Order: sequence, then structure tokens, then C-alpha cells
Amino acid sequence: MNHHELQHTVHTTIPVSKHMGFTILSLSDQQIQVSAPLPQNINIHGTAFAGSIYTIATLTAWSLVYAILRDSGSGADLVLGEAQIKYKAPITAELSCQARISTPKRTLFLQQLKQSGRSRIPIPVSVNINGAAAWEGKFIAIQH
Amino acid sequence: MNHHELQHTVHTTIPVSKHMGFTILSLSDQQIQVSAPLPQNINIHGTAFAGSIYTIATLTAWSLVYAILRDSGSGADLVLGEAQIKYKAPITAELSCQARISTPKRTLFLQQLKQSGRSRIPIPVSVNINGAAAWEGKFIAIQH
Repeated sequence: MNHHELQHTVHTTIPVSKHMGFTILSLSDQQIQVSAPLPQNINIHGTAFAGSIYTIATLTAWSLVYAILRDSGSGADLVLGEAQIKYKAPITAELSCQARISTPKRTLFLQQLKQSGRSRIPIPVSVNINGAAAWEGKFIAIQH
Repeated sequence: MNHHELQHTVHTTIPVSKHMGFTILSLSDQQIQVSAPLPQNINIHGTAFAGSIYTIATLTAWSLVYAILRDSGSGADLVLGEAQIKYKAPITAELSCQARISTPKRTLFLQQLKQSGRSRIPIPVSVNINGAAAWEGKFIAIQH
């Protein structure tokens, strides 16, 4: 799954992502980089809205794990169980998010899914180069 | 500040809120109730998108505290420092959120702001009647 296909899937199945301008810049089986413009994600202070920052970070992590699942041949559902975010500095320009998964972590996640039909994976996402926000969520893949 | 004025402020200063259909149903100095329709907040499973649930809950809590500040005569900025959410069940219809602040908690928050120019308040938000999700965020009011 290349990043154009993945972005198309996200935009068509989660329409809020398109409205927020969620854009996948690069994708591999180890990492993803995304961006979103400020204007449609602005708040009352003229900086990035907390809800948009959380949402773009969530989509970043979800997209990476979704691509890993599909590339492995798994059709498992992928849901977010819980997440937390800390806002450290206002974002006054474009939003950017990055997430990584190490090869051992990916292998373990897919093995567990294959063995038990269910697997969990925590993913941290860093927001903007200066670490303006730090997101972490726990995903659950469920094979039906 | 009545709930029409508050909703107008939120829609015009945080445009994502309008796109998501954020609607304030009722507002007092102790509680707020909001709703948002499912269609524009849908995910790949046909249920409410995790990012939208978080965002509507964030707007619920922010709106309540913002109204309390303005009704007290304070022009303080209100920002979200951190938040967490647990997703417990899929939401297959309209989203609804509710937040409450007790009178002693509100009084303490406003007193602290008046005394030091800075005050913190944690706000929990419950999502849908069955508790489909539980959000909690920590806000900071800053008098400039």
C-alpha cells in the first residue's frame, strides 16, 4: 500500500480527515509523516486547535498501523482503545506529525494477531519538529 | 452568555466545530449538554470517529469553562494543557456529551485566577448516555 492509496482510503472512509487537510507525505513499514494546513484547523487564539492536533495525530498512528496490517495480508479491524495528549507549545503554522514502529515491535504485533486473532500496539506520535505536542494511543487489531 | 451566543463564538472562532455539527443543547453555570450528528463524524466502521469524539468532548468542556470565565467578567485566555480519553463502546448514532462543574470548584477556579492571574481546572466529560467514551482534560486560564 503506497501513501497515495492510504491517503485515499483515509479521506473516503473518515471524511473529517479530508476536511482537516490530512496529507501523508511519506510512508514505509517503519514510519509515516503527515501534515495538515493551519487555516481549517485554527482556534480562537489563531493557533492550531487542540481537537485538530489530537485528530491529526490519531490519523497518523492509525494510518501507519492500518498500512502494516494490510501489507501483511491481514483484513483485521483496527480500533483505538485509549489515548492521551500533552500540549506543550502553541502551533502557529502547518501541523506535522510523525510516528515510527520498530521492526521487532511490528513483528510481535502481527505474530500475536495471527496466533490469537487479537493484538494490541501502543504508538507514540510527535507533533511538529519542536515537539509542540506529544500523543500516545493504544490500538487493538481484531480479526473477525 | 446564553447557549446561542456561546455556540456562535465556538463556530466562528474554531471552524472545525461547525463542520462537525457541534450543537449546544443546554448551558448553565454548572453544566453543559451538546450533540453532534454521526454522518460528518463517521469512521471506516460506520461508527463515530475517535478524533471526532475527542474533539466534541474537548469543545464541550472548553465551552463550559469559557462561559464561566466570561460570565464572571474575566477576559482570561483558556487553553487545554493535556487530556486523555478511553473509548469503551462504538457509537452508532448521534454523539452527545455532558460536563458539570460544582459550585465550590467553580468558585475556587475563579478565586485562584483573580488572585494569581493563572488558574487550573480539570474537567471530565461523559460521552453518550451509556458512557461510550470518557474524556478528561486539564485547562489553564491565563489573565494577560
